[in-house]
Amino acid sequence: MDRLNATNIPPQPLSTLAEFLGATLEGSCEIPIQALCTLDPGLEGGLSFLAQGTYAKHLAESTASAVIVSQNQVKPEGFKGCLLRVDYPYGAWAKVLDNFGVHHAWHSSSIDPSAIIHPSVQIGPGVRIGAHATIGEGSIIHPNVTIYANSQIGSQCILHAGVVIGADGFGFAPPIIKGEGLLKIKHLGLVILEDHVEIGANSCVDRAVVGATVIGQGTKLDNLCQIGHNVRIGQSCVLAGQVGIAGSTIIGHGVQIGGQVGIAGHIVIGDGARIGAQSGVHKNIEAGKTFMGSPAVEASVFRRKFVASNMKPN
Amino acid sequence: MDRLNATNIPPQPLSTLAEFLGATLEGSCEIPIQALCTLDPGLEGGLSFLAQGTYAKHLAESTASAVIVSQNQVKPEGFKGCLLRVDYPYGAWAKVLDNFGVHHAWHSSSIDPSAIIHPSVQIGPGVRIGAHATIGEGSIIHPNVTIYANSQIGSQCILHAGVVIGADGFGFAPPIIKGEGLLKIKHLGLVILEDHVEIGANSCVDRAVVGATVIGQGTKLDNLCQIGHNVRIGQSCVLAGQVGIAGSTIIGHGVQIGGQVGIAGHIVIGDGARIGAQSGVHKNIEAGKTFMGSPAVEASVFRRKFVASNMKPN
Amino acid sequence: MDRLNATNIPPQPLSTLAEFLGATLEGSCEIPIQALCTLDPGLEGGLSFLAQGTYAKHLAESTASAVIVSQNQVKPEGFKGCLLRVDYPYGAWAKVLDNFGVHHAWHSSSIDPSAIIHPSVQIGPGVRIGAHATIGEGSIIHPNVTIYANSQIGSQCILHAGVVIGADGFGFAPPIIKGEGLLKIKHLGLVILEDHVEIGANSCVDRAVVGATVIGQGTKLDNLCQIGHNVRIGQSCVLAGQVGIAGSTIIGHGVQIGGQVGIAGHIVIGDGARIGAQSGVHKNIEAGKTFMGSPAVEASVFRRKFVASNMKPN
Repeated sequence: MDRLNATNIPPQPLSTLAEFLGATLEGSCEIPIQALCTLDPGLEGGLSFLAQGTYAKHLAESTASAVIVSQNQVKPEGFKGCLLRVDYPYGAWAKVLDNFGVHHAWHSSSIDPSAIIHPSVQIGPGVRIGAHATIGEGSIIHPNVTIYANSQIGSQCILHAGVVIGADGFGFAPPIIKGEGLLKIKHLGLVILEDHVEIGANSCVDRAVVGATVIGQGTKLDNLCQIGHNVRIGQSCVLAGQVGIAGSTIIGHGVQIGGQVGIAGHIVIGDGARIGAQSGVHKNIEAGKTFMGSPAVEASVFRRKFVASNMKPN
Repeated sequence: MDRLNATNIPPQPLSTLAEFLGATLEGSCEIPIQALCTLDPGLEGGLSFLAQGTYAKHLAESTASAVIVSQNQVKPEGFKGCLLRVDYPYGAWAKVLDNFGVHHAWHSSSIDPSAIIHPSVQIGPGVRIGAHATIGEGSIIHPNVTIYANSQIGSQCILHAGVVIGADGFGFAPPIIKGEGLLKIKHLGLVILEDHVEIGANSCVDRAVVGATVIGQGTKLDNLCQIGHNVRIGQSCVLAGQVGIAGSTIIGHGVQIGGQVGIAGHIVIGDGARIGAQSGVHKNIEAGKTFMGSPAVEASVFRRKFVASNMKPN
Repeated sequence: MDRLNATNIPPQPLSTLAEFLGATLEGSCEIPIQALCTLDPGLEGGLSFLAQGTYAKHLAESTASAVIVSQNQVKPEGFKGCLLRVDYPYGAWAKVLDNFGVHHAWHSSSIDPSAIIHPSVQIGPGVRIGAHATIGEGSIIHPNVTIYANSQIGSQCILHAGVVIGADGFGFAPPIIKGEGLLKIKHLGLVILEDHVEIGANSCVDRAVVGATVIGQGTKLDNLCQIGHNVRIGQSCVLAGQVGIAGSTIIGHGVQIGGQVGIAGHIVIGDGARIGAQSGVHKNIEAGKTFMGSPAVEASVFRRKFVASNMKPN
C-alpha cells in the first residue's frame, strides 16, 4: 500500500460503493476497492475522485481502480480503471470519506494507551497524544503539544510547546442542496514527521485527507507555521516563522523559505529553491531558483521591477 | 437588551457616572444607565463614547442614552441622548470599563463549575473552560483549548487543539499623564460562536469590549487565524489559514477569504465577497466583488496593474 | 556581567577552548573565559564569534576577550582580544554552545519546584513553568501557557492563553560535512519580560542564543505574534496581531507596529516609529518615521508610488 497517497478501507466490491453513491458505474472492476487514494498517482484497488477540470490531466495516468467523476467527464484513453459518474463528484467524495472516517475520541488520560512511544522520549506536562500515534527514539515533546491519532513522529525530533500535529485539514464542499451548510471533508489520512525534524512553538501540521502529510528528515520549522493537508516537504528544508503552505503542495529538499511566506496549494517547489520573506507563491518554482514578492517572481525580475518604477526597494 | 452591542452594568443614574468621571453633564436622562454599548447603533439606557472624529457621523443616529465626548464636540441635531463632556473621552471610557469590569479568576479545576456544557459535548484532555461559558449539543472540543469566561459555543461546533476563545481584545489608550504607561481597555463583552462553526488549530477569537464578537452559523476558520474584538462574521464563510481581522469589522455571509489575508478594523465586507490570498483590505468591499493585492483592489484592476508595468503576475 | 548580551559558562582558560575546537589561538588571554557573548558589544572574559563578513565591522570595537573567526579574517587594529581561527566559525560556535548548553528536562509537575513565583500571581490551569523561571507581583498567567526554564516575567504582566515564552530560537548551521543534517544552534540565553507587559494569545517569544530576548516595560503584543531570539523591544510599544520580528533586531520605545508586519533580523527601528499593517521591513528605520509597504518605504513615498502608477491605493 502506498501509505503516502492512500488510506485503507474495509475491502468491498466497487458496485457496493456505486450503489451507496447512487452513481452510474462505467467499466468493471475485478478486485475489491480497499483504499481511498489521491488521483495522482492513484493506486490499484484504490478509489479516488476528480472534481475540477484543472486536475483532469491526472486522470489519464492515474492508476486508481476507480474514480468518481462528473456525468460529462470524458474518459481519457490512458485511464484503465472504472468511472463512477455522479452529478456532484466532490459531494460524493465527501460522502465516501464520511462513511469510512473513524472518529477517534480523546482518551481521558493525556496519552492514549494505544500510542507507541519509545521509552527514551521526553514528554513535557500537558502533552496530549491520540490513539495509535507513534514517537521514535530520543524525541523531545515540550509542554501543551497535541498529537492527534495515528500521527507518526520519527526519532530525534523536537516539538516545541503548543505544536499541533494532525488536526483536520481545511476542506469543505459546497452543500448538495443550496442553502444548506458546507459539507465537511473528513480527513482519514495522517501526518508523518521523519527523523530529526524540529517544529517551532504553536506551529500546526494538518493531517491528510487520504495518505499522509509529510515533513522530511532534518527539516526545521520555526514558530507559528501552518502546513496544510497532504503537503510534502523534503529533507533539510528551513521554514522561518509564520510561513503558510496550502494543501497538496510539494516542496523539494534543501528549500529555504523566509518568514511569513505563503505558498498556494497543488504546486511544486524544486530542490534548493529559496523564497524571500513575505513572498506569495502561486506557481511552481524550479530547482535552485530564488523567488520573491507577492505574487512571487524571480529575484532578478523583482529587483528590476523596483528600478523600472523609479523605486528602490527601500 | 441588544447583547451583540451592549453589556449590562448595575443600573445607576447618569449623574453618578458623570460625577465618577468628573464630566460635565449636558442634557438630562430620566432612565438609569444600565448598559455600556457601542455608539452604532447604541441602546436606550446605554452609555457609549466618541473618541475620534472619524466616528462622529455615528453620533447623530446613535440611540445611546448618553455618550462621552470631548469638550468641543458639536452635538448633532439627530442625537436625542445626553453628552458627558471630558478632556479625554477614550481615557474616560477606559475608566468606566475598568470600574465595571469583573475579573474572572480561573478555577483550579479545568472546567469552571458554573459552565453549562451539554452532556453530549466531547472534551479532550487539557481543555480549560471559564465561568459561565456555555457549549451546545454535539460539539467537539479538542485538547488544550482555552475558552474564557462567558463565551458561548453553539451546537455541532468543532474547536481544534490550541484554540483560544474569548481572550481580551487588543485595546490600549494613551496614558492620561504623559510618560505613564498605556491604559488597558478592559473587555466586558464576550464571544458567540453560532452552530456548526469550526475553528482551526491555534486560532484565536477575542472577546468584545462591550457586546459580542460573533462567528456566524456554519462558518469555518482554518488554523492560526486571528479574529479581533467586536468582529462579526456572517454565515457559511470560509477563512483560510493565518487570516487576521482587526476589531469591529463586519463580514457578510458566504464570504471567502484566502490565506494570510489581513483586514483592517471598522470596515464592512459584503455578502459573497472573495478576497485573494495575502491581500490587505483597508476599505469596504461590496457584496459579490473579488479583491486582491495589498492594498487590495478589484481583481480586474489588480491584473491590469501587472500588465501596465509589463509584469505578468508570474 | 552583561546579562542582556552574555551567558555565563564555567570559567576556563582560552587555551582549553582552542584545543576543544582544534583552533589556532592568536594572542594571549590572561583572564579565564567565563561567558559566551554577542560580538557587539562583547564582554571582558567573553567568547564570541564572527561568521559573516557583514558583521566584521563589529569586530574592531568588540570588547570580547576572544572571538572565533575564519582562517583568513583580518584582525582590525581596534580589537584588543584574541582570535581563535578555524575553518568554519559558525560550526565551531555551534559546537561551543552545544558543549555548554544545559538541557532542562520538564518537571513532571506543571510548575518546576525551582521556579520563583510571587504569591500574588494568578496562574490558570494547564500553565507549565520551567526550572528557575521567575514571575513578579500581580501578574496573571492564563491557561495553557508554557514558560521555559530561566524565563523572567516582571510584575503586573498578563500572558494570555497559549503563549509560549522561552522556546528555542530558530538557528541552524549548515553541516560541517556536506550531506549531513543541519547543526542545531543551542540556545543558552533567556527571555526577560519587564513589568506591565501584556502578551496576546498564542504569541511566542523565543529565548536568546546568549544573553536575553527582552520586551520592555509596558509594551503590549496582540495575538499570534512571533518574537525571534535576541530581539530587544523598548518600552510602551504596541504590536498588533500576527507581527513577526526576526532575530537580533532592536526596536526603540513607543514604536507602533500594524498587523501582520514582518521585520527582518539584525536591524534597528528608532523610537516612536510607526509601521503600517502588512509591511515588510528589511532596513533600519529612523526615530519618528512612518513606513509602509513590502519592502517598506516612507509613507509619503508609498503614497506617491500609487499615484505614479495611476493606481490609487484602493
